[in-house]
Order: sequence, then C-alpha cells, then structure tokens
Amino acid sequence: MTSDRANRAPEIISRGRVEALSDGVFAIVVTLLVLEITVPHVAEHDSMAELARALWTLAPKFVSWVISFVTVCVIWLNHHRLLAMASRIDNALFWLNANLLLWTSFIPFPTALMGDYPTNRLAVSFYGWVMFLMALGFVLVRWHLHRHPGLLQEDVDRAAFRTGTRYSVVMGPLAYAIGAGLAWVSQIGAFVCYGAIALYFVLPHSMRGAPLSGRTRP
Amino acid sequence: MTSDRANRAPEIISRGRVEALSDGVFAIVVTLLVLEITVPHVAEHDSMAELARALWTLAPKFVSWVISFVTVCVIWLNHHRLLAMASRIDNALFWLNANLLLWTSFIPFPTALMGDYPTNRLAVSFYGWVMFLMALGFVLVRWHLHRHPGLLQEDVDRAAFRTGTRYSVVMGPLAYAIGAGLAWVSQIGAFVCYGAIALYFVLPHSMRGAPLSGRTRP
Amino acid sequence: MTSDRANRAPEIISRGRVEALSDGVFAIVVTLLVLEITVPHVAEHDSMAELARALWTLAPKFVSWVISFVTVCVIWLNHHRLLAMASRIDNALFWLNANLLLWTSFIPFPTALMGDYPTNRLAVSFYGWVMFLMALGFVLVRWHLHRHPGLLQEDVDRAAFRTGTRYSVVMGPLAYAIGAGLAWVSQIGAFVCYGAIALYFVLPHSMRGAPLSGRTRP
Amino acid sequence: MTSDRANRAPEIISRGRVEALSDGVFAIVVTLLVLEITVPHVAEHDSMAELARALWTLAPKFVSWVISFVTVCVIWLNHHRLLAMASRIDNALFWLNANLLLWTSFIPFPTALMGDYPTNRLAVSFYGWVMFLMALGFVLVRWHLHRHPGLLQEDVDRAAFRTGTRYSVVMGPLAYAIGAGLAWVSQIGAFVCYGAIALYFVLPHSMRGAPLSGRTRP
Repeated sequence: MTSDRANRAPEIISRGRVEALSDGVFAIVVTLLVLEITVPHVAEHDSMAELARALWTLAPKFVSWVISFVTVCVIWLNHHRLLAMASRIDNALFWLNANLLLWTSFIPFPTALMGDYPTNRLAVSFYGWVMFLMALGFVLVRWHLHRHPGLLQEDVDRAAFRTGTRYSVVMGPLAYAIGAGLAWVSQIGAFVCYGAIALYFVLPHSMRGAPLSGRTRP
Repeated sequence: MTSDRANRAPEIISRGRVEALSDGVFAIVVTLLVLEITVPHVAEHDSMAELARALWTLAPKFVSWVISFVTVCVIWLNHHRLLAMASRIDNALFWLNANLLLWTSFIPFPTALMGDYPTNRLAVSFYGWVMFLMALGFVLVRWHLHRHPGLLQEDVDRAAFRTGTRYSVVMGPLAYAIGAGLAWVSQIGAFVCYGAIALYFVLPHSMRGAPLSGRTRP
Repeated sequence: MTSDRANRAPEIISRGRVEALSDGVFAIVVTLLVLEITVPHVAEHDSMAELARALWTLAPKFVSWVISFVTVCVIWLNHHRLLAMASRIDNALFWLNANLLLWTSFIPFPTALMGDYPTNRLAVSFYGWVMFLMALGFVLVRWHLHRHPGLLQEDVDRAAFRTGTRYSVVMGPLAYAIGAGLAWVSQIGAFVCYGAIALYFVLPHSMRGAPLSGRTRP
Repeated sequence: MTSDRANRAPEIISRGRVEALSDGVFAIVVTLLVLEITVPHVAEHDSMAELARALWTLAPKFVSWVISFVTVCVIWLNHHRLLAMASRIDNALFWLNANLLLWTSFIPFPTALMGDYPTNRLAVSFYGWVMFLMALGFVLVRWHLHRHPGLLQEDVDRAAFRTGTRYSVVMGPLAYAIGAGLAWVSQIGAFVCYGAIALYFVLPHSMRGAPLSGRTRP
C-alpha cells in the first residue's frame, strides 16, 4: 500500500509547513490583486470631473478585483477544511497541492485581463478557464485522498468524503465551464456567474443544500 | 442559538489560521505601499538640482505613504486586540473579517491616488471614504461579536465591550466621514484629519480618554 | 570545535525563525513570478483574434513561469528536508542560507528575461547560470553541515549525508551548467533541460534512482 | 513604574505576533527588492551583444540590490536578537518597532534610486540617510528597553546591554552618516562604505571586536 510505504520513506512532509506555504501564497495573491489597478492619468490635475470619469472607466477592474478577492478567500477556506482532513502529506499530495497553488497564484493575470477587456469574449472566457483549472486542482487533491484513505484523519467519514468529492466536481470545474461558455453569449452574464459561484461558498453550509464534505465533528 | 449550532457544525474555523491570514495581508499591504512611489525620471543623470526638484514633487506621495503606513499598523493592533477577545470564528465572522481585509488590501490604491492628486478634492475625499468602509468593517465585526456573545472569551466584560463598540463608530467611520467631507473645503485639512485619526490610536489607552474596549486583564 | 563554541556564544539563531523567513521568501517569490506577465495591449478592445494573437506571443512567458514555479516548489521541498536535518543554526549557516535566499529571490528577473527573449542565447543561458548559483547555494549549505557534523540531528546517517552531498553537486550546479551550455546550441533544448531538472525532483525518491540524502526515518 | 502599570493594562501586545509581523515585513522587503530591476528593452531580440550591453548598464542596480539584500538580512538578525531580549511589548515599544519597520519597508525606493543614478551625489547620499534613520530606529528601540528594564528578560546583563546600546550608535547611525557624507566626495566610496557596514555584521561576534550586546547565554 502506497500510504504505508510513504510512512517509512523520507518523503513525509510536515502538514504544518505545507499549510504555511499555502497560506502565504493565498495571503499574497489576495493582496497583490489590487496592484493590477493602476492610478489613472488625468491631464487636468485638479479636475474632479475628469478624475471621476477616469475612475468610472475602472469600474470593470474593481468588479473583477472583488470577485477574485472573494474567490481567493473561498479557496483559503476550502483548502483549510480539506487539509484539516489529511493526517499526512505524501509526495503526490504535495505536488497536487502545488498544482492548486500554481493556478491560484495565476489569478491576478486573468483578473487584470478581464478587467481591462470586460467586453472581449476571449478575456472573460479565459478567466473562467483558469478558475476551471484551479477548481480541477481541488478535485484532484480530493481524488488522491479518496484513493489513499490512509492519508485521511481517522474520524473522517469516507462515504461522506466520497459524496463531497463528487459534489466538488459540480460546484467547481463544471460551474466554471458553464461560466466560461456563457462568456461567448453574454459577458455580463459570465461576470454574474463567476460572482455567484464565489457567493455560494460564502453561504453557511446549512443554507447550501449540499452534503457535508466528510466530517461530522470539527 | 446560532453559536451553539456552529459549535457542532463543520464550519468552525481555526482562529490561529484566520489571524495568520490577516497578519499576512497586513504585513504585505504595509510593505507594498512603498511600491506606489516610483523612482523619478530626470534627464540630466548627475544633476543634483534636478533630482532634488523631482524628489520634492513626490512629497505628497511620501506624506500619503506615512499616513497609510501608520494606519495599517493601527489596523493590525486593533485587529489583534479584537480577535484576542473571540473564542471561536463562525462563518459570518470569517466573512466580516474578510470584508475588513478587502478594504485594508485596497489601501495602496487610494494612497497612490491621493499622493498623485493631492489638490484634487475627489482624490483626497476618495481616500477618506475607503477608510470609512474599512472602519465600518471593524464596527461590523464588533457588532457580530456583540450579537453573538457566545463567540466571546468568557473573561470579556460584555458591558464594556458594548461601550467599546459604540465608541468604535465615533473614532472610526464617523471620523473618516468628517475627513472625507473636509476634503471638499481644504485638502490639507483632510490630510491632517487622516493623520490625526491614526495618531490618536498611537497614543496609549490611558491618554485617549476612551473607555476600555471590553477586557480588564490582558 | 566551532560548534561547541557557538553553543555558548550568543550567535545561536532559532531554526524556527530561519525556516519562517525562508518560507516567507519562497511563498512570495512563487507568487510574484506571475507579476512579470503583464496584460497585453490590443488596439481593438473587443477583437478576439487580436487578443488571441497577443496571448499567443506570451507563450514563452507562460512556459518560463511554469518552469520557475515548479523549481521554487522543489527548492522549498529540498530546503525543508535539509533544514529538518540541522539541529542548530550557527552564524555561517545563517549566511549560507541567506545566499541561497538571495539567488532564489532573484529568480523572477531571469524568468522574465528568458520569457521576453526566448530565442536569445544570452537570455536563456543567463537563466541557467542563476539557477547554477542557486543550486551551488544548496551544495554550500550541505558542505557546511558536512564539515560541522555537530550541527546535524543525532539520527542523521553521516555516510548517507556525504553521499547525498556529492549527489547534490551532480543534480544541481552540474545539471544547470549543462542546460546553460545547451542554450548556445538550442534554446528550446535548454528550456527542456531546465524543465527536466525540476521534474526530476517532482518524482518520488523511489523512482529517482538516487541515494537517500541522510535520514532513514522521517 | 511604567512597566508595572503596563502589566495590568490592556496594552500588552503578544511578542510572538509582533515578531511575526516584523518577519513578514522583512521577508517581503527582501523579496520585493528584485522587482525594482526591470528587464531591459533591446530592439534586436536575438542580439546577444545588445542584450549584454543592456545588462551591463544594469550593473549598479545589481550592486545596490545585493547591498540592500544583505542589509535587510542583517536587520532581521539584529531584530531577532534584540526582541529575544524583551520579555513584553508595551505600547511605546510597539510603535518604536513600527518606526523601524517603516524605514525598512522604505528600502526598495532608495535602492532603486541609487541603482538608477549611481553617479548622482544626492541619490547615493539619500540611500545613506534612509539607512541612518533605520539604524536610528534600532537605537531608539534599545534606548526604550534601557529606560524600562522591566521589559527585559531577567537573564539579560544590564551593564552589557548599556554598552551594546552605545555601540549600536557607532556601528549604526554614525557609520551611515559617514557613508552619506562620503557620497559627496566619491560615490564609489559610499557604495563600498554601505557594503562594508553590512559585511561587518555578517562576521561572527568573535571577529567583530565588539562587546556582546547584553546576553551571556543564548
């Protein structure tokens, strides 16, 4: 069994430090997002009308920023709950987690792209596909834990975990693929879709109508 | 009771990790602020007079940076004291805290805007309104803890906490609204007001003439 | 003996805080890498064809970014394992570690350079030489620990550690020097070489055909 | 006595979190420094000669970056040792530490300025004066601990601490003031001076010929 072998091998990685690395990446991404909004240039320095107009054209960048900010907070929260269910980190889990961090750290780029070209189908769709890959990263981490139950804490209900994994495909990659598809028809619709996915996870579990993801006690 | 339900639900979030995420955001914001001050371009590379003049025109950016730096340190300190009074983090508290982080992480933008357009009423007022929303974020966190006293540590004096919450409305959103209003009359007056709000919190409690915010012992 | 003297001197540095500083640098570098990919400018805002072409020209930047992202994760992992073998940090070890951090924090620059000039021999070779110096930094840390075995944990097998140190010269500086040399003949070959070095360390130990680096138990 | 009063007041701040905030700032500053070195633009993309010349003109930026990198590592190390001697953080100590962080977080600006204008007396001198204020920040922290010995750990030798404080004036503000003055006569001389101050602190205590700063045991 892989998990048993890993137990004796030198490949055990401290969960605390993987959490610290991940948290560092999340904290930095969430704070860097605002750097993509640059101060507008207005010719007449004291003109309030000119500055108001310049700030108004930045509206799509502000909206993209808020959607991405909430999304990264959701990623943090879901990552926090998922890793709390793992008892150990093996080599594959480390790299599946790194894949999740790769797409999360990439978020500032599609956010800025969508903010700069809010009416360009490709730009708005691109955002959705990056989020699709990020959400797929979550599914892969869950799938690995599901395949190697020895990596899970003892008190995790395996049946509930399996249901939660199936559920994460729907409210993750599938939802973002729909949003990315919607961008070809209506860019505003895609913005609403991306925002709604994030807001769904802001709701408490009891209001989501979703199965618990594998743990009965905190 | 909500807090009791949360106690059994999988929504309990580790206070330590929420503090780590928040501290990460504060540390990054405070350090990123300086990136908005770009090195000036002077044609004559060795000319001290030209460089001195170029640095002098950056004076409003330096002033904005110092005000924001001190303000973020105050946010860190007040956040530190407030979260130390919480015994648990529920879903709503996590998101009210995320709202506070959202406005805090936004600070580099209004700081750069005010530094670039120090005589533009809108730019100087904009800074005040962002700070108003950040301070309102603090009030909302306090209000949630006040409404769900089960989330507070046992040794927190509830009456003192209520007084502290009322007080935080005055020295927070109200003070920044006054500063933002002042910007329409005198931009220098608004700078002084924003700086004074930060300096007020630098003073030790004993000199503030303010009620303690809910704890008699550290 | 140096390690004995250091034991009594005020130069002992907490391993936990050195790890925290290093982890902070790794988390920031890995997240900053994406900032070097700037949103392309297209004249016709809604043109998908123009934006697709602009994104396509960024392909070498995306490839450089992924290679550097995986490389920094490998650095984190190897650093994590190496420092876990140290029992104490003396002054020399702190500065050899700082040298490793210096080259690691420099990575965004050669990554951007290689991404901007993917067909320029010097740019692609420059990336390899920076990685050579980073990998040499690892060898120097190992060499210092090898010379001062008192700094190693008691359960570290010194013979295996010595073998691991020799091995780190081959799969580190030597491999990058070969990649940097290859850049003069084929830039794509060098890209493949840099990627292959990172991927080699993604493999679990059992598939690397490499000796363990000094520890039999985690 | 101030320290006794503080003991009962709600102003006690956790040393661990102040260290975490400070370490976060140090890790971010040290990593951000490289962002000030932008990839040069060359017209002929494949021309190695052009790129080599462009990189060569960046030499002063590389030198400034290395000096600042080593300096921030020295700040981290000295800060680590100084705070380890404190038993508690009062309000004044928090803000004196914040003042030190302010000047440290400012370092990327004078580093970029000196790197862009290495032959401009004002730019090279400006770097020295910022470092003067940063070093003065250290002296103020020490001076506050000296004035309120109740904030010091019990095993700290007060006489040695006093000697260390006096010493920190000489190898801190005074040394940087000399470097800043030297910039008016020889800019290369100032570069050497700034580098030498950092290198002095890289040496182990036994080679510095300096008194220990207040602790006989680690």
